[in-house]
Amino acid sequence: MGTRAKEPMAVRIVLLGTAAGGGFPQWNCACALCAAARRGELPSRTQECAAVSGNGRDWWLLNASPDLRAQLTGTPALWPGPGPRDTPLRGVLLTDAEADHVTGMSELRGAAGLTVYAAPPVRSVLAPARAALGRYAAWEWPDSLADGGFVLSGGLVVTAHQVGGKIPKYVPSGASEPGPWVTAYRVEDLASGGVLVYAPCVGAWSPVLDGLCATADCVLLDGTFFAADEMGTAVRKGAGQAAMGHLPVTGPGGSLEALARHPGARRVYTHLNNTNPLLDPRSPEHARVAALGVEVLPDGTELTC
Amino acid sequence: MGTRAKEPMAVRIVLLGTAAGGGFPQWNCACALCAAARRGELPSRTQECAAVSGNGRDWWLLNASPDLRAQLTGTPALWPGPGPRDTPLRGVLLTDAEADHVTGMSELRGAAGLTVYAAPPVRSVLAPARAALGRYAAWEWPDSLADGGFVLSGGLVVTAHQVGGKIPKYVPSGASEPGPWVTAYRVEDLASGGVLVYAPCVGAWSPVLDGLCATADCVLLDGTFFAADEMGTAVRKGAGQAAMGHLPVTGPGGSLEALARHPGARRVYTHLNNTNPLLDPRSPEHARVAALGVEVLPDGTELTC
Repeated sequence: MGTRAKEPMAVRIVLLGTAAGGGFPQWNCACALCAAARRGELPSRTQECAAVSGNGRDWWLLNASPDLRAQLTGTPALWPGPGPRDTPLRGVLLTDAEADHVTGMSELRGAAGLTVYAAPPVRSVLAPARAALGRYAAWEWPDSLADGGFVLSGGLVVTAHQVGGKIPKYVPSGASEPGPWVTAYRVEDLASGGVLVYAPCVGAWSPVLDGLCATADCVLLDGTFFAADEMGTAVRKGAGQAAMGHLPVTGPGGSLEALARHPGARRVYTHLNNTNPLLDPRSPEHARVAALGVEVLPDGTELTC
Repeated sequence: MGTRAKEPMAVRIVLLGTAAGGGFPQWNCACALCAAARRGELPSRTQECAAVSGNGRDWWLLNASPDLRAQLTGTPALWPGPGPRDTPLRGVLLTDAEADHVTGMSELRGAAGLTVYAAPPVRSVLAPARAALGRYAAWEWPDSLADGGFVLSGGLVVTAHQVGGKIPKYVPSGASEPGPWVTAYRVEDLASGGVLVYAPCVGAWSPVLDGLCATADCVLLDGTFFAADEMGTAVRKGAGQAAMGHLPVTGPGGSLEALARHPGARRVYTHLNNTNPLLDPRSPEHARVAALGVEVLPDGTELTC
């Protein structure tokens, strides 16, 4: 059969959304950047979410943003058909249990046979949501951190790696224990050998991340905050940025100096907060990142690796 | 002060979204209507939600759809400012606890001092969500059915009325009791006397609804299904339409013959399911409704009454 050779021999990755929780502009934020987005001077961004496929027919979501319905509707590769309820969507890989990464699963309710991978603390805190979704359709919820990783339809081999321990704010104090609340995924395409590292939430850099980046063809990395104090500058003092669990791009130990050690991979910042000057492609901050070969891309961009 | 006379002396209503749960097109539906929407031949619609104001400065949401972020971002009257976190949004009036009417509240988390009106069964089933949202900001959750109704900032007097008893599918069987699960709102502007009746979910027609329509200037009514069997025709047999709690437009006792008794009000169908032929303005079904003076309007329409 000659058809197999015609298939794209690469991982396809669609950046469905690239903003942090709240999106860009954020509905209740009148900061300078959000105001510029409302005037149409900067591109709007939906909340962070991506889709990955090894064969172009079976697609897996990387997180499930609250904007998922619009993101799926705007992406022809993810459209349903040919049967009235056929869909190329096979499941979701969750990196954490934050509201901006899990709320979109509600939009998928009733879809047949999805599989949702998540780390044990995430599966645990989502128990009520799992029960509710289970009343619409039977889904599988395997442990993303199980030994040996897992294989996805379409020929992708995946491993999960803890990169943070931040517990979502909606979880009552004392109700949960420390653990692998935040993970990154390494996605390798068996056919091409291409490797994606997906880490939209990173609490602190670690040797684990250096090891992942060293073997990656493409890295999607947490670019939430450019500087450690930008929320206090843009919105109000005491905005609690440090407690939000995102390593800034700049500063000692920031992610930019870490990424500079891995020039062999395509490196893309995602999960951009509405206060981040990287949202403005004309800013000196954007130029500084671009000079190191690190990218900030618009929603809808498709990458291959 | 001459400024008061310049204010619009009418209720302003913005149709933020007009589709039923899943929106139009629905992400996993390849039916003829959804396919036409994907080809750009029919206007897309976000999930049902509206906003109302008596003074153009204080706005109240009627339900909180999963598409709320995009709906707020697309509606200049609801934009924030002048302070970095000022917003004209004061709260939400929930008609029920269905996922497509409550999920958007997650997007409002952290907004200061919102008030969410809901009937007792809705408040009860949302207890976990109320606790979670309470960890971001203090909100009030009054009983929408409390005797005498309630007054909203902007000069609106509101009463709630039971119009159905359908319990959301995500609620475990046996976990909840019959009660006023589904309500309609009558919103009267003190200054102009204009009356909006908002009833996007109606299980069965009743004398209560006739009474509400008789005094209304504008009625937003449940137009989910045109016919009692359309889901079986468009998607698959046994799709469970009858259990979904929406009185069809047509058929014996349908909503269209009821609305025909109230020609004095502007009458608009909303909450349209993706199987409803009213989504196509060229359809004979649309012409039949229009001939009786009942409207189907696009997302973003602003009405006054």
